[in-house]
Amino acid sequence: MHFCHAGRREGSIMTKQSFILKGNICYSKSKEEFAVTEQGYLVCIDGISQGVYERLPEQYAGLPVTDYGDALILPGMTDLHIHAPQYTFRGLGMDLELLEWLETHTFPEESRYQEMEYAKKAYGIFTEDLKNSATTRAVIFATIHRPATKLLMDQLEATGLKTYVGKVNMDRNCADYLREAGAGASLEETKKWLEETMGRYQNTKPILTPRFVPTCSDELMEGLGQLQKQYQLPAQSHLSENLSEIDWVKELCPWSTCYGDAYDHFGLFGKNGNTIMAHCVYSSEEEISLIERNGVYIAHCPQSNTNLSSGIAPVRKYLDRGLKVGLGTDIAGGANLSMFRCIADAIAVSKLRWRLADQSWKPLTAEEGFYLATVGGGSFFGKVGSFEKGYELDALIVEDGHERCARPLTVKERVERYLYLAGEQGRLTGKYVAGQKLF
Amino acid sequence: MHFCHAGRREGSIMTKQSFILKGNICYSKSKEEFAVTEQGYLVCIDGISQGVYERLPEQYAGLPVTDYGDALILPGMTDLHIHAPQYTFRGLGMDLELLEWLETHTFPEESRYQEMEYAKKAYGIFTEDLKNSATTRAVIFATIHRPATKLLMDQLEATGLKTYVGKVNMDRNCADYLREAGAGASLEETKKWLEETMGRYQNTKPILTPRFVPTCSDELMEGLGQLQKQYQLPAQSHLSENLSEIDWVKELCPWSTCYGDAYDHFGLFGKNGNTIMAHCVYSSEEEISLIERNGVYIAHCPQSNTNLSSGIAPVRKYLDRGLKVGLGTDIAGGANLSMFRCIADAIAVSKLRWRLADQSWKPLTAEEGFYLATVGGGSFFGKVGSFEKGYELDALIVEDGHERCARPLTVKERVERYLYLAGEQGRLTGKYVAGQKLF
Repeated sequence: MHFCHAGRREGSIMTKQSFILKGNICYSKSKEEFAVTEQGYLVCIDGISQGVYERLPEQYAGLPVTDYGDALILPGMTDLHIHAPQYTFRGLGMDLELLEWLETHTFPEESRYQEMEYAKKAYGIFTEDLKNSATTRAVIFATIHRPATKLLMDQLEATGLKTYVGKVNMDRNCADYLREAGAGASLEETKKWLEETMGRYQNTKPILTPRFVPTCSDELMEGLGQLQKQYQLPAQSHLSENLSEIDWVKELCPWSTCYGDAYDHFGLFGKNGNTIMAHCVYSSEEEISLIERNGVYIAHCPQSNTNLSSGIAPVRKYLDRGLKVGLGTDIAGGANLSMFRCIADAIAVSKLRWRLADQSWKPLTAEEGFYLATVGGGSFFGKVGSFEKGYELDALIVEDGHERCARPLTVKERVERYLYLAGEQGRLTGKYVAGQKLF
Repeated sequence: MHFCHAGRREGSIMTKQSFILKGNICYSKSKEEFAVTEQGYLVCIDGISQGVYERLPEQYAGLPVTDYGDALILPGMTDLHIHAPQYTFRGLGMDLELLEWLETHTFPEESRYQEMEYAKKAYGIFTEDLKNSATTRAVIFATIHRPATKLLMDQLEATGLKTYVGKVNMDRNCADYLREAGAGASLEETKKWLEETMGRYQNTKPILTPRFVPTCSDELMEGLGQLQKQYQLPAQSHLSENLSEIDWVKELCPWSTCYGDAYDHFGLFGKNGNTIMAHCVYSSEEEISLIERNGVYIAHCPQSNTNLSSGIAPVRKYLDRGLKVGLGTDIAGGANLSMFRCIADAIAVSKLRWRLADQSWKPLTAEEGFYLATVGGGSFFGKVGSFEKGYELDALIVEDGHERCARPLTVKERVERYLYLAGEQGRLTGKYVAGQKLF
């Protein structure tokens, strides 16, 4: 890595977040195609991309240039669904299905976050690892505990990552030790938490987080729906992940026409604010139409849906329909924090779905997987996930170890294989979020 | 890591490959269960395990002890199916199915190995990476080229890894540039290669390698069958990987009762020597019976079968039937060299098979995946893959990074999660093969 200046001239723009990155630049031109510029210039003014250039336009001379040599420069990635408190037991208990796994592993672990000492240590490890990962933006579940959730937000704020964080709501159908004392108490805590956090951070924002229908009473859902309307907040939850879960929701809300309707009924399905629903493995045609009409985001979590034997979501169908789709690691349903791995997993399961279940939907390509992890999920944060002019500049510097290959590879080949090799070869050596250099 | 001596006494055994390893030791007690000894002693005499002890028996005092502190000590792993020349393009072209992928990526790359300079460079990278991986034993496809195959064997010999390597045979149904000049020429080259390599190495042995039925004429198969009988050689090939491939074999060998029979007909299906068949995704009941009767090894390659959209082999069925099964990365059908990843992939696809295709066969557990990668595949090499008394001592020293967890983990939990986290956290810091320390 070499630092230099592209020359100085009068009136040049010189803020902290105005600079040029030089290297092998790749981003999604469209869902189907990479835009590749070898040894190109990525121009950033005040944290916003001014585009990628083969030759540096005269008007940007004077900006500091960081030359990353032969490295890859890729857009930052958005993890649309991740549970921070579950980071501790990722890779454990992977032989259970969803509802049993929640009882056996998840709820006992989440109850530990009533102790602030534990939360400080555990969230400290999580935030540090997240900072060092390929993720530049994330939408995160915490636990029911207000103080620990605030602590997580403080820690995340310090990393420079851009995140939404949710204090979880749950007032039924879970062990005493993790059940809030009724809808009223849950809503009170949520209001206090919103007062403590809304507009208080530069990088970190609250998001309403009813865990899922089975653990939230109608009264709680009703109250959360009102909060969303009142404060125009985003929301996140789980949808149609597992067959037993779907049956359970039908029992709990016999009036609902589909699982999604059990959120929509309370206004918590995209009508009153940006909403993410994780999984959508088994969404019916009716549910898909509702997702479409309400502009709900789908967080596709391929590794989690595999580890918990849930199934495989029809992502190609969602993409072709023009729905809003991104990827989620769903730690600890998914064991791996890497969004590169998440892309590879999304491609992998789409092939098995095609082979084993339904040949009407073709597998995802590398380009499509990359798009989902960058532009797809990034759009939840605004103009994020691309290097096109006008996008917030989130960038990864990747030394992919391509020199350990007997023959030269094109930049496109290097990007494609890094999706698969990220855990074995090469490493992430630099990261920018909204124009700020994290490392 | 600390070196010390456990004391000296008269008559103690002190060969180079006699020593004691101390640490957190875990291996397969059975398919279903781990044997775990915290801070235990693994005793090795002349390269052979004398078992694992909580307290060091008096008789072994005097042997040098290497104390690996808090690290995990695990059995080495066997990769039962891997193509060395394909290492160069792993992670590329993953949007094609088998037969198209062979034409487009595999055959052009393999043709480069007629140039020894290229082979030296490419195989040099492969062997170095394999040495640094979790693999202690491997069964490897080279190419049709005798000199390059010999070179690969020379390079592998120097690593200390124990391997079988095959010069590939193919005399039909492939591009001119990779087709041997008839069955006679292919057999002549094979004989020359056997003369050059049989019994010439300490760690490296030749294995007969007809690529697969479609690329081998009856005459070639006949000749290879005779060679196997004559020299009592092991053999390896591919079986029932892809539906189009199976149809093709049926066309080429209308007389065969199943794909496996197209090998068995020529004696190349386990009757005359240990034989490995990779994949067995679609083996019929008749084929499975033939595999069982002939004691053929199945190399299950979960990531490759996913990447090439082949399908998912019913490994649980094979295990329950008592067949000989191990795991293979199948580079470059699989993109990852790590056998830990291979275990995680085997577990993952077994869950998707259960969910999407056939609930009569339960998913694999972590214990079973671990067993397949150690004892399952290891048994192809003899008593390999366990620390029980009498096994050749192949061991991995793993610093799994468990200290980056907010709460203490048991050794069993650490092993379980490392199957999933190997690419993200922790690292392999030491390796022994048959009692020889590689690093």
